Amino acid sequence: MDYNMESIRELILNYIELDEAEWEHCSQMLKIDTINKKEIVLFQNTVCKNIYFVVKGLLRTYFIDQRGNEKTFHFSTENTFATDYESFLKRTPSHYAIQALEDTIVITISLEMHESIYTKLRYGERLGRLIAEDYFFMINDKIKALYGQTPLERYNTMNKKFPKILQRIPQHYIASYLNITSVHLSRLK
Amino acid sequence: MDYNMESIRELILNYIELDEAEWEHCSQMLKIDTINKKEIVLFQNTVCKNIYFVVKGLLRTYFIDQRGNEKTFHFSTENTFATDYESFLKRTPSHYAIQALEDTIVITISLEMHESIYTKLRYGERLGRLIAEDYFFMINDKIKALYGQTPLERYNTMNKKFPKILQRIPQHYIASYLNITSVHLSRLK
Repeated sequence: MDYNMESIRELILNYIELDEAEWEHCSQMLKIDTINKKEIVLFQNTVCKNIYFVVKGLLRTYFIDQRGNEKTFHFSTENTFATDYESFLKRTPSHYAIQALEDTIVITISLEMHESIYTKLRYGERLGRLIAEDYFFMINDKIKALYGQTPLERYNTMNKKFPKILQRIPQHYIASYLNITSVHLSRLK
Repeated sequence: MDYNMESIRELILNYIELDEAEWEHCSQMLKIDTINKKEIVLFQNTVCKNIYFVVKGLLRTYFIDQRGNEKTFHFSTENTFATDYESFLKRTPSHYAIQALEDTIVITISLEMHESIYTKLRYGERLGRLIAEDYFFMINDKIKALYGQTPLERYNTMNKKFPKILQRIPQHYIASYLNITSVHLSRLK
């Protein structure tokens, strides 16, 4: 078994019990993929058919708003996920696009695997519930930051949440993530 | 059985199968409460111990930001919920407060009932998953509105989502919900 798979097994074990047969079922459906720097793995307005678990590298989730401005929504660093979860769950056109900012190794979780979780794992529904709750908490933090924090507070939160992100990501993506201008970002630094 | 309970039973049936014994268990743990206009049922920074299902009336969810400004986050009209779900699930101090804007009748779902859902209902975990997913979709809409929509677009979305809300709610709460000034709101109207 690929050693990279172990990180996702451990992650599942944080949520639920998983016996050998169950893990066997999961690991057979997981795929290791490499994504080249600058490659786009999800285009906006297409149905998102995968969840990507970043083993090494960095993915950026972004969208183009109605005035044609590109907005960076999220960065997915090692051992975290990238997807448009609403599009994935509802099979609707995605609001977001996903692009690699570095050469990236991911574990790809397909729609088929996601569905089989609920039928093949004893605690599959619980896993789904806990992941949906975590997603909700993540996005709730984002809401609180946008509504209730100053740009400086958002900048500090980002540095805590993504250590060393400033060295890995072009400035204009960081500024867009913080919902401020590049000039404003320079002043904050 | 109180006729008001039927609306919440139907809502559960939208998500999962529920037999008579299961419904009996749920309905025994549900409480009908009345909340007077202007009464606050959840104070910010206290643990949120209830989910409120609005049978009649209107609840407002809001918070005071770090600069002392009150921001309206959400309105809960008939047949929808009000809670600080993150505080409720994690037992952490709430980010939000909840207040009645009209005399309101609610069905109160306690922490105890919420926990027993997972053990007493055959499809309790699935119910929890689907509710968490719906919560996530709701808050995802909010993110998209804040990031990607103009004030006019947010105003139109609000009118679609909450018909007749303008007649029921003071202007300054509406403006705060849209994240604009009262003057700006007057211009939009």
